[in-house]
Amino acid sequence: MSDKPFRTLSSNIVWSCPWYAVRQDKIMLPNGEEGEYNTIVKGAAVWIVPVTPAGEIVLLRHYRYTVDDWCWEIPAGGVKPGQTVVEAAREELHEEIGGRAQSLEKRGRFYTANGICNEEGYYFLATGVTLGSTTHEPAELMEIHPVPIAEVLRMAHAGQITDAPSALVIFLCEAYLKEMLLGD
Amino acid sequence: MSDKPFRTLSSNIVWSCPWYAVRQDKIMLPNGEEGEYNTIVKGAAVWIVPVTPAGEIVLLRHYRYTVDDWCWEIPAGGVKPGQTVVEAAREELHEEIGGRAQSLEKRGRFYTANGICNEEGYYFLATGVTLGSTTHEPAELMEIHPVPIAEVLRMAHAGQITDAPSALVIFLCEAYLKEMLLGD
Repeated sequence: MSDKPFRTLSSNIVWSCPWYAVRQDKIMLPNGEEGEYNTIVKGAAVWIVPVTPAGEIVLLRHYRYTVDDWCWEIPAGGVKPGQTVVEAAREELHEEIGGRAQSLEKRGRFYTANGICNEEGYYFLATGVTLGSTTHEPAELMEIHPVPIAEVLRMAHAGQITDAPSALVIFLCEAYLKEMLLGD
Repeated sequence: MSDKPFRTLSSNIVWSCPWYAVRQDKIMLPNGEEGEYNTIVKGAAVWIVPVTPAGEIVLLRHYRYTVDDWCWEIPAGGVKPGQTVVEAAREELHEEIGGRAQSLEKRGRFYTANGICNEEGYYFLATGVTLGSTTHEPAELMEIHPVPIAEVLRMAHAGQITDAPSALVIFLCEAYLKEMLLGD
Protein backbone atom coordinates (compact mmCIF):
# COMPACT_ATOMS: atom_id res chain seq x y z
CA MET A 1 0.00 0.00 0.00
CA SER A 2 1.53 3.31 -1.01
CA ASP A 3 -0.73 5.44 1.14
CA LYS A 4 -0.44 4.07 4.67
CA PRO A 5 -3.16 5.79 6.72
CA PHE A 6 -1.37 5.24 10.06
CA ARG A 7 2.23 6.48 10.04
CA THR A 8 4.68 4.39 12.09
CA LEU A 9 6.80 6.65 14.35
CA SER A 10 8.74 3.92 16.16
CA SER A 11 8.70 0.16 16.41
CA ASN A 12 10.01 -2.20 19.11
CA ILE A 13 9.82 -5.93 19.77
CA VAL A 14 8.58 -6.09 23.38
CA TRP A 15 8.27 -9.87 23.77
CA SER A 16 9.16 -12.87 21.68
CA CYS A 17 9.23 -16.66 21.58
CA PRO A 18 10.37 -19.02 18.81
CA TRP A 19 6.90 -18.96 17.17
CA TYR A 20 5.94 -15.28 17.26
CA ALA A 21 6.77 -11.89 18.74
CA VAL A 22 4.88 -8.84 19.96
CA ARG A 23 5.83 -5.59 18.24
CA GLN A 24 4.82 -2.29 19.84
CA ASP A 25 4.54 0.64 17.45
CA LYS A 26 4.01 4.30 18.16
CA ILE A 27 1.80 5.57 15.38
CA MET A 28 0.31 8.80 14.07
CA LEU A 29 -3.42 8.40 13.51
CA PRO A 30 -5.24 10.02 10.57
CA ASN A 31 -6.55 12.76 12.93
CA GLY A 32 -2.97 13.71 13.90
CA GLU A 33 -3.14 12.12 17.36
CA GLU A 34 -0.38 9.77 18.47
CA GLY A 35 -1.33 6.25 19.45
CA GLU A 36 0.11 2.83 20.16
CA TYR A 37 -0.56 -0.37 18.24
CA ASN A 38 0.62 -3.83 19.33
CA THR A 39 0.97 -6.47 16.63
CA ILE A 40 1.61 -10.18 17.08
CA VAL A 41 4.25 -10.73 14.41
CA LYS A 42 4.21 -14.19 12.91
CA GLY A 43 5.24 -15.84 9.69
CA ALA A 44 2.68 -17.10 7.20
CA ALA A 45 0.83 -20.38 7.75
CA VAL A 46 -0.69 -22.99 5.45
CA TRP A 47 -3.89 -25.06 5.58
CA ILE A 48 -4.42 -28.08 3.35
CA VAL A 49 -7.63 -29.98 2.41
CA PRO A 50 -6.30 -33.52 1.75
CA VAL A 51 -8.62 -35.62 -0.42
CA THR A 52 -7.97 -39.37 -0.81
CA PRO A 53 -8.65 -41.40 -3.97
CA ALA A 54 -11.61 -42.94 -2.03
CA GLY A 55 -13.28 -39.50 -1.78
CA GLU A 56 -12.50 -38.81 1.85
CA ILE A 57 -11.05 -35.70 3.47
CA VAL A 58 -8.35 -36.48 6.03
CA LEU A 59 -9.40 -34.65 9.19
CA LEU A 60 -7.47 -34.34 12.41
CA ARG A 61 -8.94 -34.49 15.86
CA HIS A 62 -6.42 -32.18 17.51
CA TYR A 63 -6.03 -31.39 21.21
CA ARG A 64 -5.51 -27.64 21.63
CA TYR A 65 -3.97 -26.63 24.93
CA THR A 66 -4.88 -22.94 24.44
CA VAL A 67 -8.59 -23.75 24.71
CA ASP A 68 -8.36 -27.16 26.47
CA ASP A 69 -10.48 -28.77 23.79
CA TRP A 70 -10.28 -31.35 21.02
CA CYS A 71 -10.96 -29.73 17.63
CA TRP A 72 -11.71 -31.09 14.18
CA GLU A 73 -9.13 -29.60 11.85
CA ILE A 74 -7.37 -30.03 8.56
CA PRO A 75 -3.55 -30.30 8.40
CA ALA A 76 -1.88 -26.92 8.91
CA GLY A 77 1.32 -25.32 10.10
CA GLY A 78 3.70 -22.42 9.91
CA VAL A 79 5.93 -21.59 6.95
CA LYS A 80 9.55 -21.90 8.10
CA PRO A 81 12.12 -19.23 7.15
CA GLY A 82 13.44 -19.92 3.65
CA GLN A 83 10.49 -22.18 2.77
CA THR A 84 7.94 -21.40 0.09
CA VAL A 85 4.28 -21.81 1.05
CA VAL A 86 4.03 -24.84 -1.28
CA GLU A 87 7.02 -26.50 0.43
CA ALA A 88 5.43 -25.82 3.81
CA ALA A 89 2.11 -27.34 2.67
CA ARG A 90 3.91 -30.45 1.39
CA GLU A 91 5.87 -30.76 4.64
CA GLU A 92 2.82 -30.39 6.93
CA LEU A 93 0.89 -32.91 4.86
CA HIS A 94 3.75 -35.34 5.32
CA GLU A 95 4.43 -34.67 9.02
CA GLU A 96 0.84 -34.52 10.26
CA ILE A 97 -0.81 -37.34 8.30
CA GLY A 98 2.11 -39.02 6.49
CA GLY A 99 0.43 -37.73 3.37
CA ARG A 100 1.72 -37.65 -0.19
CA ALA A 101 -0.39 -35.84 -2.78
CA GLN A 102 -0.64 -36.43 -6.53
CA SER A 103 -1.68 -32.82 -6.92
CA LEU A 104 -1.24 -29.89 -4.53
CA GLU A 105 -2.90 -26.69 -5.66
CA LYS A 106 -2.64 -23.26 -3.98
CA ARG A 107 -6.14 -21.79 -3.99
CA GLY A 108 -5.94 -18.48 -2.12
CA ARG A 109 -5.11 -16.62 1.04
CA PHE A 110 -6.65 -14.83 4.02
CA TYR A 111 -5.72 -13.00 7.23
CA THR A 112 -6.27 -15.19 10.28
CA ALA A 113 -6.77 -12.48 12.93
CA ASN A 114 -6.10 -9.06 11.39
CA GLY A 115 -7.10 -7.09 14.50
CA ILE A 116 -4.12 -8.33 16.51
CA CYS A 117 -1.83 -10.41 14.27
CA ASN A 118 -0.15 -10.09 10.86
CA GLU A 119 -0.44 -13.80 9.99
CA GLU A 120 -1.32 -14.61 6.39
CA GLY A 121 -2.91 -17.98 5.75
CA TYR A 122 -2.51 -19.76 2.41
CA TYR A 123 -4.75 -22.67 1.58
CA PHE A 124 -4.30 -25.68 -0.64
CA LEU A 125 -6.35 -28.47 -2.10
CA ALA A 126 -4.43 -31.75 -2.19
CA THR A 127 -5.85 -34.63 -4.22
CA GLY A 128 -4.81 -38.24 -4.71
CA VAL A 129 -3.57 -38.23 -1.10
CA THR A 130 -2.18 -41.46 0.32
CA LEU A 131 -1.39 -41.85 4.02
CA GLY A 132 1.80 -43.12 5.61
CA SER A 133 3.72 -42.78 8.86
CA THR A 134 3.66 -39.43 10.66
CA THR A 135 6.25 -37.45 12.60
CA HIS A 136 4.32 -35.72 15.39
CA GLU A 137 6.18 -33.78 18.07
CA PRO A 138 5.41 -34.63 21.72
CA ALA A 139 3.21 -31.51 22.05
CA GLU A 140 1.22 -32.41 18.90
CA LEU A 141 -1.61 -34.58 20.15
CA MET A 142 -3.83 -35.56 17.24
CA GLU A 143 -5.76 -38.43 15.73
CA ILE A 144 -6.17 -38.98 11.98
CA HIS A 145 -9.70 -39.55 10.64
CA PRO A 146 -10.45 -39.93 6.93
CA VAL A 147 -14.10 -38.80 6.60
CA PRO A 148 -16.29 -38.90 3.45
CA ILE A 149 -16.49 -35.50 1.69
CA ALA A 150 -20.27 -35.17 2.12
CA GLU A 151 -19.99 -35.81 5.86
CA VAL A 152 -17.20 -33.22 6.22
CA LEU A 153 -19.37 -30.62 4.44
CA ARG A 154 -22.26 -31.52 6.77
CA MET A 155 -19.98 -31.11 9.82
CA ALA A 156 -18.75 -27.73 8.56
CA HIS A 157 -22.27 -26.39 7.95
CA ALA A 158 -23.39 -27.71 11.35
CA GLY A 159 -20.62 -25.70 13.05
CA GLN A 160 -18.85 -28.83 14.30
CA ILE A 161 -15.49 -27.80 12.84
CA THR A 162 -14.71 -25.26 15.53
CA ASP A 163 -11.22 -24.36 14.29
CA ALA A 164 -12.05 -21.22 12.30
CA PRO A 165 -9.41 -21.43 9.52
CA SER A 166 -10.11 -25.17 8.95
CA ALA A 167 -13.84 -24.57 8.56
CA LEU A 168 -13.23 -21.51 6.36
CA VAL A 169 -10.91 -23.42 4.01
CA ILE A 170 -13.40 -26.30 3.67
CA PHE A 171 -16.08 -23.75 2.70
CA LEU A 172 -13.72 -22.04 0.24
CA CYS A 173 -13.12 -25.43 -1.43
CA GLU A 174 -16.78 -26.51 -1.22
CA ALA A 175 -17.70 -25.95 -4.88
CA TYR A 176 -14.70 -28.00 -5.99
CA LEU A 177 -15.41 -30.75 -3.43
CA LYS A 178 -19.03 -30.99 -4.59
CA GLU A 179 -17.83 -31.38 -8.18
CA MET A 180 -15.67 -34.28 -7.02
CA LEU A 181 -18.74 -35.87 -5.43
CA LEU A 182 -20.71 -35.49 -8.67
CA GLY A 183 -17.78 -36.93 -10.61
CA ASP A 184 -17.91 -40.18 -8.59
CA MET B 1 -12.69 -31.16 29.84
CA SER B 2 -12.15 -33.48 32.79
CA ASP B 3 -9.13 -35.25 31.36
CA LYS B 4 -6.63 -32.57 30.43
CA PRO B 5 -3.88 -34.30 28.40
CA PHE B 6 -1.27 -31.60 29.12
CA ARG B 7 -0.87 -30.92 32.85
CA THR B 8 -0.13 -27.28 33.78
CA LEU B 9 2.80 -27.08 36.21
CA SER B 10 3.06 -23.29 36.45
CA SER B 11 1.55 -20.28 34.74
CA ASN B 12 2.81 -16.70 34.43
CA ILE B 13 1.67 -13.61 32.54
CA VAL B 14 4.86 -12.51 30.74
CA TRP B 15 3.46 -9.56 28.77
CA SER B 16 0.17 -7.70 28.65
CA CYS B 17 -1.65 -4.77 27.10
CA PRO B 18 -5.26 -3.62 27.58
CA TRP B 19 -6.51 -5.98 24.83
CA TYR B 20 -4.69 -9.23 25.53
CA ALA B 21 -1.86 -10.84 27.46
CA VAL B 22 0.73 -13.54 26.89
CA ARG B 23 0.66 -16.38 29.43
CA GLN B 24 3.65 -18.70 29.66
CA ASP B 25 2.89 -22.14 31.10
CA LYS B 26 5.24 -24.91 32.06
CA ILE B 27 3.46 -28.11 31.14
CA MET B 28 3.87 -31.87 31.44
CA LEU B 29 3.35 -33.52 28.07
CA PRO B 30 1.59 -36.89 27.68
CA ASN B 31 4.99 -38.59 27.27
CA GLY B 32 6.14 -37.26 30.67
CA GLU B 33 8.47 -34.61 29.22
CA GLU B 34 8.24 -31.04 30.46
CA GLY B 35 7.51 -28.35 27.94
CA GLU B 36 6.52 -24.71 27.63
CA TYR B 37 3.37 -23.36 26.00
CA ASN B 38 2.68 -19.68 25.37
CA THR B 39 -0.95 -18.61 25.02
CA ILE B 40 -2.29 -15.26 23.92
CA VAL B 41 -5.04 -14.76 26.49
CA LYS B 42 -7.97 -12.73 25.24
CA GLY B 43 -11.64 -12.36 26.03
CA ALA B 44 -14.30 -13.65 23.66
CA ALA B 45 -15.24 -11.72 20.51
CA VAL B 46 -18.39 -11.38 18.45
CA TRP B 47 -19.08 -11.19 14.71
CA ILE B 48 -22.42 -10.04 13.32
CA VAL B 49 -23.99 -10.46 9.83
CA PRO B 50 -26.27 -7.39 9.61
CA VAL B 51 -29.07 -7.75 7.04
CA THR B 52 -31.16 -4.71 6.08
CA PRO B 53 -34.87 -4.82 5.16
CA ALA B 54 -33.73 -4.16 1.54
CA GLY B 55 -31.84 -7.49 1.51
CA GLU B 56 -28.34 -6.11 1.84
CA ILE B 57 -25.54 -7.15 4.16
CA VAL B 58 -23.77 -4.21 5.77
CA LEU B 59 -20.06 -4.75 5.07
CA LEU B 60 -17.16 -2.71 6.36
CA ARG B 61 -14.11 -1.79 4.35
CA HIS B 62 -11.68 -1.70 7.29
CA TYR B 63 -8.06 -0.57 7.32
CA ARG B 64 -5.98 -3.03 9.33
CA TYR B 65 -2.66 -1.69 10.54
CA THR B 66 -1.35 -5.19 11.40
CA VAL B 67 -1.31 -6.16 7.72
CA ASP B 68 -1.33 -2.65 6.16
CA ASP B 69 -4.35 -3.54 4.06
CA TRP B 70 -8.01 -2.64 3.61
CA CYS B 71 -10.22 -5.66 4.31
CA TRP B 72 -13.88 -6.43 3.67
CA GLU B 73 -15.38 -7.42 7.00
CA ILE B 74 -18.59 -7.67 8.96
CA PRO B 75 -19.03 -5.76 12.25
CA ALA B 76 -17.09 -7.39 15.10
CA GLY B 77 -15.45 -6.63 18.40
CA GLY B 78 -14.41 -7.88 21.80
CA VAL B 79 -16.74 -8.76 24.64
CA LYS B 80 -16.05 -6.35 27.52
CA PRO B 81 -15.78 -7.65 31.10
CA GLY B 82 -19.26 -8.01 32.59
CA GLN B 83 -20.92 -7.99 29.17
CA THR B 84 -22.83 -10.92 27.71
CA VAL B 85 -22.00 -11.87 24.14
CA VAL B 86 -25.44 -10.64 23.03
CA GLU B 87 -24.83 -7.25 24.65
CA ALA B 88 -21.44 -7.06 22.93
CA ALA B 89 -23.01 -7.89 19.55
CA ARG B 90 -25.67 -5.21 20.03
CA GLU B 91 -23.00 -2.65 21.06
CA GLU B 92 -20.66 -3.39 18.12
CA LEU B 93 -23.57 -3.21 15.70
CA HIS B 94 -24.43 0.19 17.10
CA GLU B 95 -20.88 1.58 17.34
CA GLU B 96 -19.54 0.33 14.00
CA ILE B 97 -22.51 0.92 11.68
CA GLY B 98 -25.00 2.80 13.85
CA GLY B 99 -27.11 -0.33 13.47
CA ARG B 100 -30.28 -1.32 15.29
CA ALA B 101 -31.65 -4.80 14.65
CA GLN B 102 -35.23 -6.07 14.85
CA SER B 103 -33.85 -9.52 15.54
CA LEU B 104 -30.40 -10.57 16.77
CA GLU B 105 -29.84 -14.31 16.88
CA LYS B 106 -26.79 -16.10 18.28
CA ARG B 107 -25.97 -18.89 15.83
CA GLY B 108 -22.77 -20.55 17.07
CA ARG B 109 -19.15 -20.26 18.07
CA PHE B 110 -15.63 -21.08 16.94
CA TYR B 111 -11.98 -20.69 17.96
CA THR B 112 -10.24 -17.94 16.01
CA ALA B 113 -6.63 -19.14 16.24
CA ASN B 114 -6.45 -22.14 18.59
CA GLY B 115 -2.74 -22.79 17.99
CA ILE B 116 -1.68 -19.60 19.74
CA CYS B 117 -4.72 -17.87 21.27
CA ASN B 118 -7.68 -18.83 23.50
CA GLU B 119 -10.15 -16.44 21.81
CA GLU B 120 -13.67 -17.78 21.32
CA GLY B 121 -15.73 -16.16 18.57
CA TYR B 122 -19.52 -16.03 18.76
CA TYR B 123 -21.49 -15.17 15.68
CA PHE B 124 -24.87 -13.58 15.17
CA LEU B 125 -27.35 -12.98 12.42
CA ALA B 126 -29.05 -9.58 12.74
CA THR B 127 -32.10 -8.90 10.60
CA GLY B 128 -34.25 -5.82 10.06
CA VAL B 129 -31.11 -3.71 10.51
CA THR B 130 -31.41 0.06 10.11
CA LEU B 131 -28.36 2.31 9.96
CA GLY B 132 -27.67 5.45 11.98
CA SER B 133 -24.74 7.47 13.24
CA THR B 134 -21.60 5.63 14.32
CA THR B 135 -19.09 6.11 17.12
CA HIS B 136 -15.73 5.09 15.66
CA GLU B 137 -12.54 5.60 17.65
CA PRO B 138 -9.66 7.48 15.96
CA ALA B 139 -7.83 4.18 15.31
CA GLU B 140 -10.93 2.60 13.71
CA LEU B 141 -10.70 3.49 10.05
CA MET B 142 -13.61 1.99 8.18
CA GLU B 143 -16.20 2.69 5.51
CA ILE B 144 -19.74 1.30 5.58
CA HIS B 145 -21.03 -0.47 2.45
CA PRO B 146 -24.46 -2.12 2.28
CA VAL B 147 -24.05 -4.80 -0.42
CA PRO B 148 -26.79 -7.10 -1.84
CA ILE B 149 -26.76 -10.58 -0.25
CA ALA B 150 -26.06 -12.39 -3.54
CA GLU B 151 -23.05 -10.16 -4.21
CA VAL B 152 -21.66 -10.73 -0.70
CA LEU B 153 -21.94 -14.51 -1.20
CA ARG B 154 -20.16 -14.15 -4.53
CA MET B 155 -17.36 -12.11 -2.89
CA ALA B 156 -16.98 -14.71 -0.12
CA HIS B 157 -16.74 -17.64 -2.55
CA ALA B 158 -14.28 -15.67 -4.71
CA GLY B 159 -11.99 -15.21 -1.70
CA GLN B 160 -12.41 -11.43 -1.71
CA ILE B 161 -13.38 -11.31 1.97
CA THR B 162 -9.85 -11.76 3.27
CA ASP B 163 -10.70 -11.39 6.97
CA ALA B 164 -11.00 -15.07 7.94
CA PRO B 165 -13.66 -14.88 10.67
CA SER B 166 -15.85 -12.54 8.57
CA ALA B 167 -15.76 -14.91 5.59
CA LEU B 168 -16.33 -17.95 7.83
CA VAL B 169 -19.39 -16.39 9.47
CA ILE B 170 -20.90 -15.46 6.09
CA PHE B 171 -20.46 -19.09 4.98
CA LEU B 172 -21.96 -20.39 8.23
CA CYS B 173 -25.03 -18.18 7.61
CA GLU B 174 -25.19 -18.94 3.87
CA ALA B 175 -28.15 -21.38 3.95
CA TYR B 176 -30.21 -18.86 5.91
CA LEU B 177 -29.15 -15.97 3.66
CA LYS B 178 -30.13 -17.94 0.54
CA GLU B 179 -33.55 -18.62 2.08
CA MET B 180 -33.96 -14.88 2.53
CA LEU B 181 -33.11 -14.38 -1.16
CA LEU B 182 -35.73 -16.96 -2.18
CA GLY B 183 -38.26 -15.29 0.12
CA ASP B 184 -37.93 -11.96 -1.78
